[in-house]
Amino acid sequence: MTDDAQNAAPIDLNADLGEGFGRWTLTDDEQLLTVVTSANVACGFHAGDPRTMRRVCELAAARGVRIGAQVSYRDLAGFGRRAMDVPPDDLASEVAYQIGALEVFARAAGSAVSYVKPHGALYNRAVHDEEQAEAVVAGVRLAGGALPVLGLPGSRLHAAAERAGLPVVAEAFADRAYTRDGTLVPRTRADAVVIDPEAVVRRSVRLAAHHEVTSVDGDTVAVKARSLCLHGDTPGAVRLARRVRAGLEEAGIPVAAFA
Amino acid sequence: MTDDAQNAAPIDLNADLGEGFGRWTLTDDEQLLTVVTSANVACGFHAGDPRTMRRVCELAAARGVRIGAQVSYRDLAGFGRRAMDVPPDDLASEVAYQIGALEVFARAAGSAVSYVKPHGALYNRAVHDEEQAEAVVAGVRLAGGALPVLGLPGSRLHAAAERAGLPVVAEAFADRAYTRDGTLVPRTRADAVVIDPEAVVRRSVRLAAHHEVTSVDGDTVAVKARSLCLHGDTPGAVRLARRVRAGLEEAGIPVAAFA
Amino acid sequence: MTDDAQNAAPIDLNADLGEGFGRWTLTDDEQLLTVVTSANVACGFHAGDPRTMRRVCELAAARGVRIGAQVSYRDLAGFGRRAMDVPPDDLASEVAYQIGALEVFARAAGSAVSYVKPHGALYNRAVHDEEQAEAVVAGVRLAGGALPVLGLPGSRLHAAAERAGLPVVAEAFADRAYTRDGTLVPRTRADAVVIDPEAVVRRSVRLAAHHEVTSVDGDTVAVKARSLCLHGDTPGAVRLARRVRAGLEEAGIPVAAFA
Amino acid sequence: MTDDAQNAAPIDLNADLGEGFGRWTLTDDEQLLTVVTSANVACGFHAGDPRTMRRVCELAAARGVRIGAQVSYRDLAGFGRRAMDVPPDDLASEVAYQIGALEVFARAAGSAVSYVKPHGALYNRAVHDEEQAEAVVAGVRLAGGALPVLGLPGSRLHAAAERAGLPVVAEAFADRAYTRDGTLVPRTRADAVVIDPEAVVRRSVRLAAHHEVTSVDGDTVAVKARSLCLHGDTPGAVRLARRVRAGLEEAGIPVAAFA
Repeated sequence: MTDDAQNAAPIDLNADLGEGFGRWTLTDDEQLLTVVTSANVACGFHAGDPRTMRRVCELAAARGVRIGAQVSYRDLAGFGRRAMDVPPDDLASEVAYQIGALEVFARAAGSAVSYVKPHGALYNRAVHDEEQAEAVVAGVRLAGGALPVLGLPGSRLHAAAERAGLPVVAEAFADRAYTRDGTLVPRTRADAVVIDPEAVVRRSVRLAAHHEVTSVDGDTVAVKARSLCLHGDTPGAVRLARRVRAGLEEAGIPVAAFA
Repeated sequence: MTDDAQNAAPIDLNADLGEGFGRWTLTDDEQLLTVVTSANVACGFHAGDPRTMRRVCELAAARGVRIGAQVSYRDLAGFGRRAMDVPPDDLASEVAYQIGALEVFARAAGSAVSYVKPHGALYNRAVHDEEQAEAVVAGVRLAGGALPVLGLPGSRLHAAAERAGLPVVAEAFADRAYTRDGTLVPRTRADAVVIDPEAVVRRSVRLAAHHEVTSVDGDTVAVKARSLCLHGDTPGAVRLARRVRAGLEEAGIPVAAFA
Repeated sequence: MTDDAQNAAPIDLNADLGEGFGRWTLTDDEQLLTVVTSANVACGFHAGDPRTMRRVCELAAARGVRIGAQVSYRDLAGFGRRAMDVPPDDLASEVAYQIGALEVFARAAGSAVSYVKPHGALYNRAVHDEEQAEAVVAGVRLAGGALPVLGLPGSRLHAAAERAGLPVVAEAFADRAYTRDGTLVPRTRADAVVIDPEAVVRRSVRLAAHHEVTSVDGDTVAVKARSLCLHGDTPGAVRLARRVRAGLEEAGIPVAAFA
Repeated sequence: MTDDAQNAAPIDLNADLGEGFGRWTLTDDEQLLTVVTSANVACGFHAGDPRTMRRVCELAAARGVRIGAQVSYRDLAGFGRRAMDVPPDDLASEVAYQIGALEVFARAAGSAVSYVKPHGALYNRAVHDEEQAEAVVAGVRLAGGALPVLGLPGSRLHAAAERAGLPVVAEAFADRAYTRDGTLVPRTRADAVVIDPEAVVRRSVRLAAHHEVTSVDGDTVAVKARSLCLHGDTPGAVRLARRVRAGLEEAGIPVAAFA
């Protein structure tokens, strides 16, 4: 155990799962569920057919992994990655619809939907767009039960959730580059993603233990996060996820879902 | 009060509602909800966008109308009217998905999904197809709570539901012709639908009070039903529904949702 | 014949047609095709199932009405009215796909797709958004044949089309209010739409004969258009369309499709 | 060159390509296009987004591979593998729609759609179902140009195509087991697929050179085919396809698209 471990708060590991659709598969759900503590399950709007949702919920429940609703714009063709000007009432209803659909499978598996995380373009838009952030929160409230909202610290989404009395959980990205402002380097830039697995592991440990990361400009930036997002849809995703988890455990940092 | 009323058991009136999608509308939900006692709400697979589902649930809850999940094949282009060879596991998951999605809106409106009725081609197929009937029932069970299944008496669907311990509710069709076997005359025949409103009202009263109907061959056929299905998507649907309800009430037959 | 008619250039009347989908209908295609000279046929992405596309093409061809491809974002649930950040390559391919699909039905009816008009949010976005305007034009070029692009004069879409060597056709809106800059008053404003049928007819004649319209501020604004867009999806749409056409003809203005 | 080559007629190799959708990929289009002579391109109803269709057409045209429209039921969720009772008029229109959409990309690539092959459940159904076979043929005729129909010899589809004056091209399956009647062993049986690559190559050569194959019962069965179907969506698909082609060429059998 290194000195990273001294009084280290636990860190959650979340990943997007169930992102196939019918004949198509994307994420290695079975393997990723041996690593993560929170599963962001696709709910059918950008990915995730009902049978896959059911199976991922069963696997997650069997492994004690928390189940979250990964809600999205209705956009199978674009995998939910295209920002859409959905009117707030429609968006709130669509968010609630997705949560409800997932609840059935979580419940049947003896578990429950215990948080919500927007996917793709909706995630990005709810960082800055007040109206859509409010609509997502309205959808979560429609679904009932005051579910926590997993997202970017400082986002409009988190502000709206807090105003509505919903718990918020901040996440950081181990394999994404940060600016000196603590925001993510846009994916359009060549240096947006950290490729070197060793670096990803080192950054994960530092984020979890010291709540900081080195920006693309070399500055130290404070990033306070209770959860680390691991990407599940890239080649080598499972191996990298395992190394991150092993690195955290070797550093004495407890890996555990948020309460 | 006529002698129809003597000891008359109550009859439920059900209709398909919320069968628009986005820009398109079909059923006059607001008016029909002043007549029926059970609302079969489309859940998004053959019709029914989330905002419409929410609104119909709010209206139904406000009027004390029961909310049922009108589950369907995934077929917006065909309005769920095209039989599909969906593998049982997929079908069960799709049924559960739809029930869960509707639950959110029923619950938010202070109500609950309190029964399930298959739509269109799935309804027809589950009359005779053992495998698909079992799959629908498996989907209802996945969704939890032992919801009653509304359907044709004597159908495979009802048999499967009873084997699974689910309550069944039999329905009759006031505007559909019956054969001497008590089955519906197929829609492909010219005499499948009773057009004359007076006749529809008379048949409704007789079905409710005496559990019988005159077949296309002139025979008296026993049809035991706790609910009458009114069609909501035809011109004059609201007016006809009102006349049926008035006719039942004038005959002293209590109009009330099934328990 | 009034003096409006002196040397009056012909005016085209276009309307959106075939905007149902499967069970749902919206536009009275049969009646509108007795009035308009150009039919913007929905191609399946915001509305328009293949059977409807085929039928509208047959009716249009039989009446000598020109057939245009009304291309849209892929968004049945939102009727193509929600702006989407579709990457240019995808958008160009989607536009070409829709044109090709329609071509089959136009050709089978003995006609051809002879122009392209974007629908809804894509129309609005291509007024200002350079990238999406270019993508629409790239899609038209992919489809081959240098089809004219029907749209707002001064739009990015028209500029991009002209750079690409495609003919452009300017349209005006008889029932929409204009600002003093010659742009449309946004639909979010209460005075965006001209309700009074007499006023719509008067404005149509003036637009066709004198290429001008009175703005919401009372100014006379020059609006040079070869086509007038009539709305087909509102109650009374057919009657209003008939009155506009009759008004133009009474004023001696030839109603004819653009070349 | 073996004696297989004596007077050997050329054989076509076809495979399903472009069977991804948006974010999801399935077939290794680039590699398969170095092996096959005919590309069955998915047209968007069971798979195949417009951008993928465009790219596959460009690659096929660049390599001189023929482009065929792989038409399907509208069923992304089921990958077109679920039989659907689509009314004939709708089905014909849907087939034509898909062919038209693909034509745009084939033409833009300097090629053309030069045949049609139904996919999945539609393929299987059109073997036995007269009505749907006729509807597919009606769709091909709507699309114009008397395109050849690639399918199972002896199928209703081929009979309907011939009655309509369309050329037919018979195909055989190198990796599927045959009954003594010359029909395919259903996929529900464990011995439906020939696993051993050597056996697949041997059967391919025998089918191409001698028009016969050994049935599951050990009988020699005559199977007259101008094209061999190679599966593209299985692991090792590309390698197996290469071995089949090499085997045919080593045996002196010309590999060439049908005219």
